[in-house]
Amino acid sequence: MADGTRFILPESAIPTSWYNIVADLPSPPPPPLHPGRLDPVGPGDLAPLFPMAIIMQEVSNERYIPIPEEVLEVYKLWRPTPLYRAHRLEKALELPKGVRIFYKYEGTSPAGSHKPNTAVPQAYYAKQEGVERLATETGAGQWGSALSFAGSIFDIDVKVYMVKISFAQKPYRRAMMETWGAQCVASPSLDTNAGRAILAADPDSTGSLGIAISEAVEDAATREDTKYALGSVLNHVLLHQTVVGQEAVAQMEMADAYPDVVVGCVGGGSNFAGITFPFIQEKLTKGRKTRIVAVEPAACPTLTRGVYAYDYGDTAKMAPIVKMHTLGHSFMPAGIHAGGLRYHGMAPLVSLLYDQGIIEAEAVKQRAAFESAVLFARTEGILPAPEPSHAIRVTIEEALRAKEAGEDKTILFNLCGHGHFDLVAYDKYLAGDLPDYEHPQSEIDAALSGLPSVAE
Amino acid sequence: MADGTRFILPESAIPTSWYNIVADLPSPPPPPLHPGRLDPVGPGDLAPLFPMAIIMQEVSNERYIPIPEEVLEVYKLWRPTPLYRAHRLEKALELPKGVRIFYKYEGTSPAGSHKPNTAVPQAYYAKQEGVERLATETGAGQWGSALSFAGSIFDIDVKVYMVKISFAQKPYRRAMMETWGAQCVASPSLDTNAGRAILAADPDSTGSLGIAISEAVEDAATREDTKYALGSVLNHVLLHQTVVGQEAVAQMEMADAYPDVVVGCVGGGSNFAGITFPFIQEKLTKGRKTRIVAVEPAACPTLTRGVYAYDYGDTAKMAPIVKMHTLGHSFMPAGIHAGGLRYHGMAPLVSLLYDQGIIEAEAVKQRAAFESAVLFARTEGILPAPEPSHAIRVTIEEALRAKEAGEDKTILFNLCGHGHFDLVAYDKYLAGDLPDYEHPQSEIDAALSGLPSVAE
Repeated sequence: MADGTRFILPESAIPTSWYNIVADLPSPPPPPLHPGRLDPVGPGDLAPLFPMAIIMQEVSNERYIPIPEEVLEVYKLWRPTPLYRAHRLEKALELPKGVRIFYKYEGTSPAGSHKPNTAVPQAYYAKQEGVERLATETGAGQWGSALSFAGSIFDIDVKVYMVKISFAQKPYRRAMMETWGAQCVASPSLDTNAGRAILAADPDSTGSLGIAISEAVEDAATREDTKYALGSVLNHVLLHQTVVGQEAVAQMEMADAYPDVVVGCVGGGSNFAGITFPFIQEKLTKGRKTRIVAVEPAACPTLTRGVYAYDYGDTAKMAPIVKMHTLGHSFMPAGIHAGGLRYHGMAPLVSLLYDQGIIEAEAVKQRAAFESAVLFARTEGILPAPEPSHAIRVTIEEALRAKEAGEDKTILFNLCGHGHFDLVAYDKYLAGDLPDYEHPQSEIDAALSGLPSVAE
Repeated sequence: MADGTRFILPESAIPTSWYNIVADLPSPPPPPLHPGRLDPVGPGDLAPLFPMAIIMQEVSNERYIPIPEEVLEVYKLWRPTPLYRAHRLEKALELPKGVRIFYKYEGTSPAGSHKPNTAVPQAYYAKQEGVERLATETGAGQWGSALSFAGSIFDIDVKVYMVKISFAQKPYRRAMMETWGAQCVASPSLDTNAGRAILAADPDSTGSLGIAISEAVEDAATREDTKYALGSVLNHVLLHQTVVGQEAVAQMEMADAYPDVVVGCVGGGSNFAGITFPFIQEKLTKGRKTRIVAVEPAACPTLTRGVYAYDYGDTAKMAPIVKMHTLGHSFMPAGIHAGGLRYHGMAPLVSLLYDQGIIEAEAVKQRAAFESAVLFARTEGILPAPEPSHAIRVTIEEALRAKEAGEDKTILFNLCGHGHFDLVAYDKYLAGDLPDYEHPQSEIDAALSGLPSVAE
């Protein structure tokens, strides 16, 4: 067991390929379907939305996909990211010597989270193919910030449809995107048919990720100069995020340790895939017994209370239908501060892994997540974003269970972003003013009744 | 010339001593005076305010002071910090091959700036001597955040008097301090005699660093369990910050380069000292010709328009009198967003170096600083705080002058913090709504007329 607090790789250790878990799965994921025709989409169907290089990655079966030199050059602005041994958190929990906590930290990227890992290649491939403008949605703002940053690097215009409630709650995220030269509007907006239709029906709509996706997809589909960029869910996005886990595998080796449990929060699935897929690869191909735990918010319990079925990715039914764990595309998650986890669906690849019993899932309530976040900040110093605070909660519970049981255990989680733009939520938590939410089963049942009928 | 973007030192390369420039100065700095008696203060005068270990460092002539193991353990949470070659900024400026820009980045600390470098040892020494509580002031909030973080690490209560205008402008800084367990009040407050007197005279006072210092000093002087902590100006603070420059010296060696010019922004002087003192040591002792440039805001031009004289460090005349460049202790700098640079005085050591011609100084206006900050964000990705944006401005000007003159030049500056809490200012700049300020000479003259009469 190597000593040390922060395990730092040299610039030369940035991974040179992305890892594609599809190559190692027992069975391939079911194909995405066209939202109108309900039959499998081909590259031609996706061409109005995505650059061709991205479409080819989306359907690729290759185990490794080389990272272009130009993308690596940008990764060097913050990669490799550090991996920490949580000495001070361990001490606060009075853990025995055999129970150890490690965390990978992605908050050192310019945008403050793991999101630039995919924003940069998405902008790069778009630029390569002559795309002048990208449209996207964002919830809490992490993804919109990341794509704005990437757009500024490759000189591409970026338009961000930001869920209206977050747009109002977090004006600084908008200012950050604008500093990088992007345009950011509150969604639903008057700029698209989808937005206008929703505002006509409900002028007070506070928006949702499903609505914002509809607006961005419509924007891209209706403009020659514009493509769409998605920050999670799809295979190519998860692929790009595997630089996180690949570095973590190398850093755990530096620490002379191997995780018994890897924990990641899940919303659309990209952070979770990033940290866990390279460890799942070792589980699937090298017989490792690692437990892999996905942590979702109790207010949006896609894996733990949703169904595994074909569903629309967006509210206006414009995006492809995919087989995934879902609460129904009309499900409106409660307004928790972990905006990055408020999505009705789940990445098809993560859903498949859960369906096949390769990964586990747990749901955490908002106050419990913040309780753990404050303990983390007061011991490790870093102020975590609300999203990874869900993973911190489960990590702490795992550690305390091992202590109780007298077992040795090494736990790794991904701290996928800092909470510098989430202090309103901390303020409310400290004032005892942060509610917990749990949706009644009737609400979930109602949303699930709207799933498309797909013959499988 | 080594290739590379980010030069990363291993954990083992964290400096193990602080560098004390006093040992290498041509003449020692003039002694601080008692604010009442106007004669030199001794350790006994300072004992009510500071832990004895800090007082001994304040008056030390030793060239190197070992960093305690417990402080090094905390430094490991973020040190060594990265040093970057600004490839993308250079490209945007179309610089020739021989003109190169490097920057050290301190924004990866938990509090987001260089301030924890001294907050951690100050809290550590206080804890060693049984201090239960620390009182301090903060302007924009960087220092208050840093001391709150350090207090949480060493289990010491922290009370922060935050300049009222910043308290209102940046509520998230307060929430950040509270997350780390500190108490933060707007200054002037009703909690001290100094604060009450000022509010009685001017109920609408928006506060100043000078006032907040008076409140914190009074708090510490009147409570048995409490000492005072200062985030800049004094010798021991500048000393602690030299870890920055020591690392930078090693990292420039990794890059196989040496700076012709080192640039740092100056408010109280701690960031400037941190990056430059180890290079000034090489200038003073190894005959290096490095130019050292201090950059201050045009709205608070302590070096370029102030005088070198004995003056009070605070408004209520409770802190020791020191010989420094000053605009007068009653000078009220305009409300620029670089709150960390809004101090009427300057570190005595920095003032002495300027008086002796060892360093240069330049003043930069607010809009010019933000213009450079936006260019930096759009090329290098990182969103800079308003304070180091002043250094970025001068760095860019130096680079363009070298390009114009056809000279080779290697420039290094310290990016001492990120701007995640400064987006209101970016928003205003982008909207064309950010004013420039320059104080008329009559205002400076009026403030300077209140300097104490000290026989030298």
